Amino acid sequence: MAHKKVVILGGGFAGINVAKILGGDMNCHVTMIDRGNHHLFQPLLYQVAMAGLNPSDIASPIRSMLRRYDNIFTLMAEAQQIDVERRVVMTDFGDREYDYLVVACGATHDYFGRDEWEEFAPGLKTIPQATEIRRRVLTAFEAAERTYDLEEQTKCMTFVLVGGGPTGVELAGAIAEMAHNTLKKDFKTIDATHAKVILVQSGDRILKQFPASLSAYSKDALASLGVDVRLGSRVTDITADGVQIGDEFIAAKTVIWAAGVKANPIGKSLGAELDRAGQVVVGNDLTIAGHPEVFVIGDQASAKDEDGKMLPGVAPVAIQQGQYVGKLIRREAAGKATVPRRPFHYRDKGQVATIGRRRAVMQSGRLRLTGSIAWLGWLFIHILYLNGFRNRLFVFFSWAWSYVTFARGARLIVPKRWKNNIN
Amino acid sequence: MAHKKVVILGGGFAGINVAKILGGDMNCHVTMIDRGNHHLFQPLLYQVAMAGLNPSDIASPIRSMLRRYDNIFTLMAEAQQIDVERRVVMTDFGDREYDYLVVACGATHDYFGRDEWEEFAPGLKTIPQATEIRRRVLTAFEAAERTYDLEEQTKCMTFVLVGGGPTGVELAGAIAEMAHNTLKKDFKTIDATHAKVILVQSGDRILKQFPASLSAYSKDALASLGVDVRLGSRVTDITADGVQIGDEFIAAKTVIWAAGVKANPIGKSLGAELDRAGQVVVGNDLTIAGHPEVFVIGDQASAKDEDGKMLPGVAPVAIQQGQYVGKLIRREAAGKATVPRRPFHYRDKGQVATIGRRRAVMQSGRLRLTGSIAWLGWLFIHILYLNGFRNRLFVFFSWAWSYVTFARGARLIVPKRWKNNIN
Repeated sequence: MAHKKVVILGGGFAGINVAKILGGDMNCHVTMIDRGNHHLFQPLLYQVAMAGLNPSDIASPIRSMLRRYDNIFTLMAEAQQIDVERRVVMTDFGDREYDYLVVACGATHDYFGRDEWEEFAPGLKTIPQATEIRRRVLTAFEAAERTYDLEEQTKCMTFVLVGGGPTGVELAGAIAEMAHNTLKKDFKTIDATHAKVILVQSGDRILKQFPASLSAYSKDALASLGVDVRLGSRVTDITADGVQIGDEFIAAKTVIWAAGVKANPIGKSLGAELDRAGQVVVGNDLTIAGHPEVFVIGDQASAKDEDGKMLPGVAPVAIQQGQYVGKLIRREAAGKATVPRRPFHYRDKGQVATIGRRRAVMQSGRLRLTGSIAWLGWLFIHILYLNGFRNRLFVFFSWAWSYVTFARGARLIVPKRWKNNIN
Repeated sequence: MAHKKVVILGGGFAGINVAKILGGDMNCHVTMIDRGNHHLFQPLLYQVAMAGLNPSDIASPIRSMLRRYDNIFTLMAEAQQIDVERRVVMTDFGDREYDYLVVACGATHDYFGRDEWEEFAPGLKTIPQATEIRRRVLTAFEAAERTYDLEEQTKCMTFVLVGGGPTGVELAGAIAEMAHNTLKKDFKTIDATHAKVILVQSGDRILKQFPASLSAYSKDALASLGVDVRLGSRVTDITADGVQIGDEFIAAKTVIWAAGVKANPIGKSLGAELDRAGQVVVGNDLTIAGHPEVFVIGDQASAKDEDGKMLPGVAPVAIQQGQYVGKLIRREAAGKATVPRRPFHYRDKGQVATIGRRRAVMQSGRLRLTGSIAWLGWLFIHILYLNGFRNRLFVFFSWAWSYVTFARGARLIVPKRWKNNIN
């Protein structure tokens, strides 16, 4: 039997797990295509934005992760178009045929038709975005220190986070802690503890994926850090000067977007049904209608569990989908397939979100935890799931160091321009 | 007696050492001005460029380094002009008067009138330059893996370093080791060990600051790593396609400039004598003629030792000059000055340069060391002089890890653009 050509688009949690399962399986020849060179551990990206970790602490070169598998070819390239009839992926490197295609290109932020807001309110999905946010937050304090204008100073020291999900909550907590602990003694003119951190949430509670009791705990925990949580508030405009919320204008130099999500547009070329967020609607085997050889998984997929409930866009879903697809392709390539395919089943082990130092919420089945124990659980889970022993070790050291000293290890404002000579 | 207003321009080795000596001295009110927010340990910058260390491992926020001194005000601003008659520094933040001025803005690369080469051959003085070089080197291997054109592949895998000083030697050794060890198993199409690394030196030996025997050892050590050292070769042109050396054109995608140096142009506004490299000529107390209150130190100064020999542009000179100026200002501000001033005396403790794994050269007085022992000496000295316990610890861990695994911790190709939505 000839080997099967498998093409995987995207080296995130979903794609990398397909590749790992197929690694070493000589029935399959796998091509992993990503436009970047690294797999990113997105749940810790906010710590890069908040100067707690280095980009390389939470990223690994995809090429190295897959180097030991002779049947996997890693390609840094941009997928531009998919032709499901001819079974070809077109990239900037050339065309690539497939017998099985796995589309796992993830999602980006959705500004709900107001893309011009991105300039003033970056989202947080990639390393360049994380370092851009870091630059803005650190520069805002420097700018506040330099000005004699009190109004301008207040604007510099006001930080608005749009969206009350885990990212917004984690960023709000981290900025408040940075102001109160790390930066407190560093400035002479300003008092960094006067920084205003405002978390804007359109719904009636934050962390709405969690049970209501944990949302309430999180709101109180944020309040105790000085974060002003605005529930039922909707942002109507964002400019260079701040944020409009209904009738109120909040002057703020730094605004961060942690609200809507939309899927990678490559999904459109599949010709399959898309949902409102541009996610590709898939069946219970994670394939598109009429094409059992085309899988869409991770944040790019609109998949439902057995009860018809949408699966959330979180890492555990992407990981389990990747493993499911990998095993399914392996069985079929070996001629051991069962017909019809066994449907994908998501095992929900629970969820955890951190607010700050010794404050977190955790839910698993009927278990609900808050405070230090949830926070330790959060630390443990994130260290455990990080890729590679080196990253685990370095993140552990960084956290231990920050915990003891209240310092942040990556507080650099790095200019974008590298040239010295202006031509 | 009223306190003295001291303004320091530049937070490098020279400036930061002035500040540290004056820290806590209530006879002086000190303003430290730097356009960045961090002090950089430049001797390890090549390791950031070579993906061995993270930027934040070798940088510390100036504000944090000086936070404990109540008499020091740190300002992130760009000095634009100096008026030595009115004793005022003009910055983009406003004017700043001084009783003593310390100018320590360092130097950048000199392309000897061919500034257009910078685009194709970045230098290595700042963090953005280091990450730009990292991006280019890693991307070159990715591009080689993607192409079917053998000529293009060879061009992608050819790396030319211009300049045989410590930076050129360290970069050449590091690229060769990366190709031979780190990347060897990562690629399927190309054989990374076929990478060509060419070090171009106009003089008749590399590391000409060192004794001739150590230059010869270094050349052999580089050759054993596969580096092609071209002595007596002068670059006559650099384009996007490669480097012209006399009659020979070397096709190369990656060229790095480690040759000439020129001082920061702010020195011009002092109205003092400049040398060919734009460095400010100073007397034996490191001040400019006619202005005993204006010191110029570090890479920006053209200073001579007692024998009339130019002091080299290295960290130990900058550090000792900073300490000398700090102590001198402190004594004068306290009214304990000696007239005339005791001249600056440089204590040369020797020098060290690394070529690669267990290969280095070291010279101190009549002592000359090579190989493992010089390499261990190099490691020890650099850990010792790094700023802050955290950075020492993390650099030590990174090195230990790389030594054992041959891996590099910071192998990220990070795009410059952070926006997702194209407006």
